[in-house]
Amino acid sequence: MTSRPPYDQLVGELREGGVLESVQCLLEWDQETLMPPRGAERRAEEIALLSRIIHEKKTAPRVGELLDRAAGEKDLGPDARANLREARRHYERARKLPADLVAEIARTRSLACEAWKAARRANDFPKFAPWLEKTFHLAREKASRLGWKDSPYDALLEEHEPGMTTARLVSLFGELRKGLVPLVKAIAGSRRRPDRNLLSGKFPAAHQEEFARRVATDLGLDFSGARLDRSAHPFCMGLTPDDVRITTRYNESDCLSALFGVIHETGHALYDQGIAPELVWTPIGQPRSLGVHESQSRLWENQVGRSRAFWSHYLPLLSERFPSLSGVAHARSGRGADLDRFHFAVNQVEPSLIRTEADEVTYNLHILLRFDIERDLLAGELAVSDLPDLWRSRMASDLGVRPDTDADGVLQDIHWSIGLVAYFPTYTLGNMLAAQLHARARADIPDLEVFFARGEFRPLLDWLRDRIHRHGSRYETEELVQRAVGTRLSTAPFLDYLRAKYSPLYGIS
Amino acid sequence: MTSRPPYDQLVGELREGGVLESVQCLLEWDQETLMPPRGAERRAEEIALLSRIIHEKKTAPRVGELLDRAAGEKDLGPDARANLREARRHYERARKLPADLVAEIARTRSLACEAWKAARRANDFPKFAPWLEKTFHLAREKASRLGWKDSPYDALLEEHEPGMTTARLVSLFGELRKGLVPLVKAIAGSRRRPDRNLLSGKFPAAHQEEFARRVATDLGLDFSGARLDRSAHPFCMGLTPDDVRITTRYNESDCLSALFGVIHETGHALYDQGIAPELVWTPIGQPRSLGVHESQSRLWENQVGRSRAFWSHYLPLLSERFPSLSGVAHARSGRGADLDRFHFAVNQVEPSLIRTEADEVTYNLHILLRFDIERDLLAGELAVSDLPDLWRSRMASDLGVRPDTDADGVLQDIHWSIGLVAYFPTYTLGNMLAAQLHARARADIPDLEVFFARGEFRPLLDWLRDRIHRHGSRYETEELVQRAVGTRLSTAPFLDYLRAKYSPLYGIS
Repeated sequence: MTSRPPYDQLVGELREGGVLESVQCLLEWDQETLMPPRGAERRAEEIALLSRIIHEKKTAPRVGELLDRAAGEKDLGPDARANLREARRHYERARKLPADLVAEIARTRSLACEAWKAARRANDFPKFAPWLEKTFHLAREKASRLGWKDSPYDALLEEHEPGMTTARLVSLFGELRKGLVPLVKAIAGSRRRPDRNLLSGKFPAAHQEEFARRVATDLGLDFSGARLDRSAHPFCMGLTPDDVRITTRYNESDCLSALFGVIHETGHALYDQGIAPELVWTPIGQPRSLGVHESQSRLWENQVGRSRAFWSHYLPLLSERFPSLSGVAHARSGRGADLDRFHFAVNQVEPSLIRTEADEVTYNLHILLRFDIERDLLAGELAVSDLPDLWRSRMASDLGVRPDTDADGVLQDIHWSIGLVAYFPTYTLGNMLAAQLHARARADIPDLEVFFARGEFRPLLDWLRDRIHRHGSRYETEELVQRAVGTRLSTAPFLDYLRAKYSPLYGIS
Repeated sequence: MTSRPPYDQLVGELREGGVLESVQCLLEWDQETLMPPRGAERRAEEIALLSRIIHEKKTAPRVGELLDRAAGEKDLGPDARANLREARRHYERARKLPADLVAEIARTRSLACEAWKAARRANDFPKFAPWLEKTFHLAREKASRLGWKDSPYDALLEEHEPGMTTARLVSLFGELRKGLVPLVKAIAGSRRRPDRNLLSGKFPAAHQEEFARRVATDLGLDFSGARLDRSAHPFCMGLTPDDVRITTRYNESDCLSALFGVIHETGHALYDQGIAPELVWTPIGQPRSLGVHESQSRLWENQVGRSRAFWSHYLPLLSERFPSLSGVAHARSGRGADLDRFHFAVNQVEPSLIRTEADEVTYNLHILLRFDIERDLLAGELAVSDLPDLWRSRMASDLGVRPDTDADGVLQDIHWSIGLVAYFPTYTLGNMLAAQLHARARADIPDLEVFFARGEFRPLLDWLRDRIHRHGSRYETEELVQRAVGTRLSTAPFLDYLRAKYSPLYGIS
């Protein structure tokens, strides 16, 4: 036994943590979808115990010893080196956080979340304010334990987007803002408006589910290793590549919100299903980062699912399945003016108050606002009590809309209440990377849209499998992006994509 | 920390094992109901790891030390003493089994189960024979590790039915046989036959599910802490009293098999829901034994669900829900000749080949056969190759039917293939205890059947909660039975129940 090389021993030890993380995923998935309500309290205890066991396994002194000894092994291949790199990163971070602080953060998280729910319901920001103070106080403490050079925000960002820095985000997001604000203004100034009435009708949830399942299958989701269920908030949970579960919710007067939701989650699920089997339950068997994960969901939702080519295939099928769909009763050909009107209707741009309902043009301005606020809160340069006013004025200046209530303003997102600081930027990084991947895939597969129009998505999926999915965390993000698209992460392809798509729709030059 | 009394420390340590056992239940439930097929291989690894961690926690030397130290504590209450008794029992048993043997049993179990499935499909007993040899070889090894005085069967029985002995079973089952064989013969000799055509029709699964859910709710199942799903083989899984899950399967040309299945599983579920909350995740928080568990499912299925009073309430509802039900279209009154005919039809006695389809009179003769065979196999007094012939001749002499194939004979049950030896008797113990509990409940609640006829089951449930459910494993079985019914476990109430019910139905004296 002891004669096994240290690297093999290390991988064996870490594998157990990986297996238990899959188990924890199931506990959480079950809680969100099926668990009887009375089960919640004991489920929390089950999850807490499992988290503790996983943390203990990850931070065991034996892991540190094996890491040191394995580093000296000759003849380790590149995947083994990458595993050591990731294992070292997890180990160092986990060891820096004292158990007391971890427990205090966990306790605050569940109490603050309850306070947030109550405050949002009552539109009562002052009720949540002390919890927000405490959450950011703990986030500061966490950042200082983890250590940082330029900004405490860096320390937290590393958890969600390893390798990314605050300075880089400030620069990228600055460029983005410079491109987005004028585009939003130009669109707002256009006299063209899509006819959203085209999309009205009555759509039974069971029919929507059947249609969504069909589309997900067409996109490449393998249901022999996946499930689609219902939950209050849509999500994707990859237990392992062989068991990936997505959820959605259905609105019977809207046949598209669930569908786009399923396409989005399918994008996540295709990534989870595509990780190479031999990497599973090793450190590099994890998806690379939240930003990379979001690039997959956004690419399938927007660059694919909101494209004209996509709807030239699916509009006839949709109007056949939902004869009550207004205005497209004769759209069976999927061509011409019906398709143009429908395509415009599913790509409406309209500044709005709620991030999760925002279109792909205005969406990132919601993120930039949150990024600026959480950085300032963390640095102690912004008082929690000033937040509601700041939110309102910034929404007005960036998007031209002003929330009447804090529930539709600063209280709308769950993230801060559950301690997720430095998480929002990963959404925008995902949007940027999606556009880069899309542009590169189009260059590599010139007929990409012809395939879409035939309902064929395998060429795109194979390309993503090869460039992104199968690698898991084998490469650091910088290298993964460079290998996939040939350049660094950048804003230009995303801005180009938006301009190319929306200028003709809104008739702007 | 170390100043906590050893008993408190012990309970804390063991609680973690209990929490992880609940997690393991979820993994198994999910696998049988929802898991995508490709997930099976990794799920096996998840369950194996969790089993190992649970085993390590239970057998840790620290548990042994705490057990010794806690035994000397003064002022422990009766529940604490009971916890020490159960914890000691689990610990001693677990420590006696070497890890190699446990692993070998687990490995053989999954291979033998696959071999059994193939052999049953192909009706090829010789294919399964070597696996059966191996299974009993390992069972003998296990029994000898665990140790025994009178019979190796005692050592295995202790796992499923603590406190029971082989000698006692031989005596009880001998009495039972003496009563059952003549009753079966008398019924076979009767010229009366129920009209099973009454039950024919076409019954959509969704409607059956709705009806079954309604009945389960009426019986007292609290769906805020329970679920009903579908699976290939019906079962009940109590993760905790706050999360109990039952399953069934639907046959659309039979509106009763799923319903009786659900009533049976509801009986199990009511027991799991009824364990006192403060006992959960302590050693005495477990149901007492398989026999006691089965007494609950059988009592609700047979003494309640197949009673005339029960159907006087539900027959009108059933015929309303399923208008296609033959012969009871005018049964809305739930009285008189229709009810009599229906009651007879759901209580048909007919010797048959398959245990799981047997009626409540012939059922235990199937068990007695298996009990005799597995004792002889374990003792090495019966050769595996002699099994098929022995099975056929014993079925012919006991039940008057003779399987044409081994698939309908010795190959019909999964139990031995998955290493469950000394498990079958618990079914019959459950039938016996169900009759004892029913007789005692009728004595304590004279109007019990009047309540049933009104669809009121709370009086019976409250009685069972008080006598059985809430106690978990607080008392040893002998004491639990004595407290509940005032006598030891015995066969007379069951035989009396059968004679009182079936003599009038079949017109025998």
